Amino acid sequence: MTADFHALRINEKRLVARIEALGKIGALEGGGVCRLALTDAEKLGRDHLVSEMKSLGLSVEIDAIGNIFGTRPGARSGPVVMIGSHIDTVATGGLYDGVLGVLAGLEVIATLNEAGIKTDCPITVAAFTNEEGARFSPDMLGSLVYVGGLSADEALDTIGIDGSRLGAELNRIGYNGKDSGPKEIRAYFELHIEQGPILEDEGIEIGAVAGVQGISWTELTIRGRSAHAGATPMRLRHDAGLAAARITVGVRELIDQVGPEQVTTVGATTLSPNLVNVVAEKAVLTIDMRNPDEAKLQQAEALLSALIKQVAEEEGVEIERRILARFEPVAFDNSLINQVESQALELGLSCRGMYSGAGHDAQMIARRAPAAMIFVPSHKGISHNITEYTKPTDLSNGANVLLNVIVSSANPVPM
Amino acid sequence: MTADFHALRINEKRLVARIEALGKIGALEGGGVCRLALTDAEKLGRDHLVSEMKSLGLSVEIDAIGNIFGTRPGARSGPVVMIGSHIDTVATGGLYDGVLGVLAGLEVIATLNEAGIKTDCPITVAAFTNEEGARFSPDMLGSLVYVGGLSADEALDTIGIDGSRLGAELNRIGYNGKDSGPKEIRAYFELHIEQGPILEDEGIEIGAVAGVQGISWTELTIRGRSAHAGATPMRLRHDAGLAAARITVGVRELIDQVGPEQVTTVGATTLSPNLVNVVAEKAVLTIDMRNPDEAKLQQAEALLSALIKQVAEEEGVEIERRILARFEPVAFDNSLINQVESQALELGLSCRGMYSGAGHDAQMIARRAPAAMIFVPSHKGISHNITEYTKPTDLSNGANVLLNVIVSSANPVPM
Repeated sequence: MTADFHALRINEKRLVARIEALGKIGALEGGGVCRLALTDAEKLGRDHLVSEMKSLGLSVEIDAIGNIFGTRPGARSGPVVMIGSHIDTVATGGLYDGVLGVLAGLEVIATLNEAGIKTDCPITVAAFTNEEGARFSPDMLGSLVYVGGLSADEALDTIGIDGSRLGAELNRIGYNGKDSGPKEIRAYFELHIEQGPILEDEGIEIGAVAGVQGISWTELTIRGRSAHAGATPMRLRHDAGLAAARITVGVRELIDQVGPEQVTTVGATTLSPNLVNVVAEKAVLTIDMRNPDEAKLQQAEALLSALIKQVAEEEGVEIERRILARFEPVAFDNSLINQVESQALELGLSCRGMYSGAGHDAQMIARRAPAAMIFVPSHKGISHNITEYTKPTDLSNGANVLLNVIVSSANPVPM
Repeated sequence: MTADFHALRINEKRLVARIEALGKIGALEGGGVCRLALTDAEKLGRDHLVSEMKSLGLSVEIDAIGNIFGTRPGARSGPVVMIGSHIDTVATGGLYDGVLGVLAGLEVIATLNEAGIKTDCPITVAAFTNEEGARFSPDMLGSLVYVGGLSADEALDTIGIDGSRLGAELNRIGYNGKDSGPKEIRAYFELHIEQGPILEDEGIEIGAVAGVQGISWTELTIRGRSAHAGATPMRLRHDAGLAAARITVGVRELIDQVGPEQVTTVGATTLSPNLVNVVAEKAVLTIDMRNPDEAKLQQAEALLSALIKQVAEEEGVEIERRILARFEPVAFDNSLINQVESQALELGLSCRGMYSGAGHDAQMIARRAPAAMIFVPSHKGISHNITEYTKPTDLSNGANVLLNVIVSSANPVPM
C-alpha cells in the first residue's frame, strides 16, 4: 500500500506554536528577538531546539563549529535529504528569519512521524552557526565551514564585534561538538521568508528560488574642494556632494540599460563638512548592485566605471574606488527548483520563480550538493526588524511545500 | 593749497604688522586664530585695539552691546564717515576676515595723521560685537543693535552655544559700555576679504561690492520606506536617498533657468539608516540658494517647490519643508559704490562690480546710512579656515582704496 503523500499537510497551529516558543527566547520588549550567535540567549535557543529534536526521535550531532544536525534514520544509510537554516538573529531581529526553515523542518518530521511514513533516505534537520554575521564575520559561517569552504580552526579564531573569540564562546555555551554531521547530501531544501516585497505585492504564495543574486559592493570616496556657498560661483566649484548625488541618480538610471533583474542601491552617503553653507569637500557613498546573471552584473559594473569617470571629469573631483564585497551569483539545482514548483502547484498554491536578494546557508550547501529554496511572503518586505511578519497561512503553505518535496526526495518506502 | 590726496598710500608693511600682531592674540597652533566673541582671547584683542586707537589719538567709545568706536575729530562735529568691521572670529578662523576692515581703518587714520590731513567730517573706526555668530546667534549682532534692529536688552539676554549669557560675558570682560557711538553716519565703508574665489580667478584686484545676495535656506526631510537592497525590486521602492540625490541634482540644474547670478548648494545630506544594503527610509538635506535679485530668488524658490513636488510624486516619498533662513538682498549705496570704482581706477587697480555671498556688518549699517564694501582677493576663496590668506599687495591695495574713498567722503580741509 502506498500512502497518498500529497494529501499530507503539516499542522499549522503547531508550527506557529513552535515559532512563538522559540521567539520567547531572547525576546525583546516591544516585540522581536535578539539572539546573536553564541550568546546566552542563543544557547537557550539551541538547548530548546536540541530538546525538540530529541523528543521527535532525531539523533543529534554537533560539529566543531557548533552546527546542529538532527537526523531521522532512513531505510538505508548514506546520503541524507537535508532541511536547513539557522536560529541566530540580528540584534533587533524578527521571529521568522532562519527560524522558519529549522522549525518547519521539525514540523515535517513530526508530520512524517504521525503519518507513520518511512523514507529510504535519512532526513536531517540542520541549524547552522552564525548565519547572520551580526556578531562574527563572515555571515553564513557555519554552513561555509560545513561544506569545507573555511577551516574550522580558522573559523574558531574569528573575533566578534564584542571582542570575543568564536571558539571561546562556543566552548562557553557547550556547543563545541566533535561530530562531523552528514557526509553526503542528496538534496538540500531551505524554507525562508522572502525578506522582500515581491510575493506580497503580486499576491503569490510560494517563491521557487532559482538562485542567489551576485553582489557587487563598492565604496566611493569623492574629494572636491570646500567653498563658501554664497561667495563661490557655480563654475568654480568642485562639489563632492553634487558628484555623489549625480552618481546616485546615474546608478539608478543604468538599470534601464542592464535590464529589470538589476537592482542598485546607494544606501549610505556621508558628506564633509556637512554644513548648510559650505560646498562639501568630501563625500563617501556606497553602491550595492545585484544581478542573478554574472555577465549582466559585470555590465552594470562597467557602466558604473564609466559614470564615475564622467562625473569626476565634469565636476573636477577625484574619486577613489574600493571594492567592499563581490560575490558571483549562485544557481540552485534545476531539478529541485522544478520539484518546488510542481509540489506548490499540486497543493493548489500560486508560485513564481525568483532570485534571492539576500545570502542564505543554501548557497553554501549548493557548493557541494543539489540545493534549492522555498520563499513565503514577508509583510511589506520587512526583515531584520522586530516588525518582521509572515501570516500563519503563508508559513504553513511553505512548510507544506517543504514537506512534500522532502517526501518525494527521500523516497518513501511502502509500509 | 590742496594736497594731492590721490598720491596718498598706506604703509603696507605696517598694515601687515598690525594684522600679524592681532593674529597672535588667540592664535592656534599650526596657524589661524580662535577669538570667539567675548571670550578671554577676544577681550585681549579688544584691549589691543583700544590701545592702538588711543595711541593714534582717537577718542574711544564703547556702547551697551560692546561695539567699539574710535573717532578722529573733524573740523565740524556731526555725521561721521565710518570704517567698520569686526575682530571676533569663528573657532578655527583665519587672520583676515573682519580684522582687515578694522585694522585698515587704523592704518587710514595713521596715514592721515602722518600726512597732516584734516577732514571736515569726523572719521570713526568701528569694531562690531559678535559679527560671526559663532558663539551667539544671530550673527552681525553688534551692528544690528547699533542701527536699532534689535534692542540691546534683548541682545544681552542671548544665550551662547556654551550656555553663557551675552550680557554676563560682556560684563566679565569689561566691555559693557555706556556710550552710544556716532549718532549719524554720512558714509560707511567696509574693506573685507572676498571669502570667495572670483577675484583671484579673474585676476582682478578690487571688488566694488554692489550689495549682499538674498539668502534662502531650506531644510527638507524626506520619508520613504526602508527596504532590503537585494530583495526589493526598483519599482517597489520608496528611496529617500535617491529622492535626496534627485533634488540635489535638480537644484543645481535650476540655475540654467534663473541665470548665472543664482547660486545653489546642497551642503548637508544625512541618510537613515545609512547602510550599504538598506534602501534609505529617511533623508534630511539642506538647500542654500542665493541671488542678488529678490525676484530671481523667488523664481528659484518656485522652481524648487515644483522640483520637490515632482520628486515626491515620482519616488512615492513624503517631503517636509522647513525654512531655516530667509533674507532679502541688500543693495549698497550707488554713489559710494561708484566712489570705490573710481578710486580703484585712479590708483591703477583693476576693479569689478560684484555681490557679497556672505553677510557683513555693512548690510546692517545700510539700513540707516549709505554703505558700501571693498573686497580684495581671498586665496582659493578659502575663509573661516586657518589657511585663509590674502597677499600683502592685495591687503594694501584694498586699504589704499579705503583711504582714498574715506578722504573724499570726509571732505579734506585746506591746511
